[in-house]
Amino acid sequence: MLEFTTEDLSAEDIERLRAIYEPLAISVRELVDATIRTEVDAETVAAVKADIDAATARLRSDQIDGAFGVRRTASGQSISWGNAVIGLRNASAPPLVIHRDEDGRRWTDFHLGAAYEGPPGHVHGGVSALVLDHVLGEAASPDGKPRFTGSITVRYLRACPLGPLHAEAQITRVDGVKTFASGYISDAEGITVEAEGVFITPRWLRD
Amino acid sequence: MLEFTTEDLSAEDIERLRAIYEPLAISVRELVDATIRTEVDAETVAAVKADIDAATARLRSDQIDGAFGVRRTASGQSISWGNAVIGLRNASAPPLVIHRDEDGRRWTDFHLGAAYEGPPGHVHGGVSALVLDHVLGEAASPDGKPRFTGSITVRYLRACPLGPLHAEAQITRVDGVKTFASGYISDAEGITVEAEGVFITPRWLRD
Repeated sequence: MLEFTTEDLSAEDIERLRAIYEPLAISVRELVDATIRTEVDAETVAAVKADIDAATARLRSDQIDGAFGVRRTASGQSISWGNAVIGLRNASAPPLVIHRDEDGRRWTDFHLGAAYEGPPGHVHGGVSALVLDHVLGEAASPDGKPRFTGSITVRYLRACPLGPLHAEAQITRVDGVKTFASGYISDAEGITVEAEGVFITPRWLRD
Repeated sequence: MLEFTTEDLSAEDIERLRAIYEPLAISVRELVDATIRTEVDAETVAAVKADIDAATARLRSDQIDGAFGVRRTASGQSISWGNAVIGLRNASAPPLVIHRDEDGRRWTDFHLGAAYEGPPGHVHGGVSALVLDHVLGEAASPDGKPRFTGSITVRYLRACPLGPLHAEAQITRVDGVKTFASGYISDAEGITVEAEGVFITPRWLRD
């Protein structure tokens, strides 16, 4: 059983915490990119590394045990700020901002830079799978209650360039505890990768 | 056509560059983790953010355009230091170190922390897909020449906990330009996620 923690946070509390921690993650995301692309000399790298170690030590002087988790507010809002895809405190996440149309379709416009590379100048195939797993999973959970991936198949139509991208997904069918969803990633030229998946309602949500 | 660049780097050059840049990425990886987990106050966060912005500016004072790419040395070694899964200069990558058995099986022991979370305390399903896409792709490329994912199916047997994990993959069949591979991720209790994929030899490598 997964532990979703509940905290009595108001909308104002959440906004206050977001204003503190989100700008830090945005800066660290830039640093991740610069760390891949820099060509400065060994001395400069060593000096920068020392500054970063000092910064990390200050942050770690008061930190939670383990990962961020998923925290639910008393009003039912879900806070996944550590999430590998949408976590706004996670500098490894793009992070995706998922939108919802009235017809249940989920979509996101996002940008993938140097940290998401596989083939030269192109998105790692596994990163496309990561994005699609998340977007299909959100589409399969229209009531805000989580469904977990049972299986997903990802088909690569052509190499997906780094840069601005779009992803979307929707439910195709529901059969008991199984929700089927499909979706794709596209660039300005059209679809690059498509996926379909089966998402399972966990036992403890089956009323 | 993908641009693999060739550089006349000796083994000593590569080791020297690795010694400069790898420790920086290791430090930034720790910072990514601390950024998710810290609970220090707003003033400390703002001070740390300013230090990080300064560090990023120093690194960016001399940097390549775009992503790292894949650089081949004159001796045929492939350097993918920006890669999203194995890139030793990519703080968003775990990074995986892939081993090769004599029978062609590829395997890796790795650790996933707070930056790879999906469900509370557990690996994001998409991160498992990312890892498996990469490990199967390496298994499908035994001659060191890249094969690209045509399609991959990932099946989730149970939730995969954050922490120490193992992944492995091997070729199951070759049919012309298609190489089939399968593999899995396991924790101490056994297999959590399994995958099978079809990997395609790119046109420009077909004879």
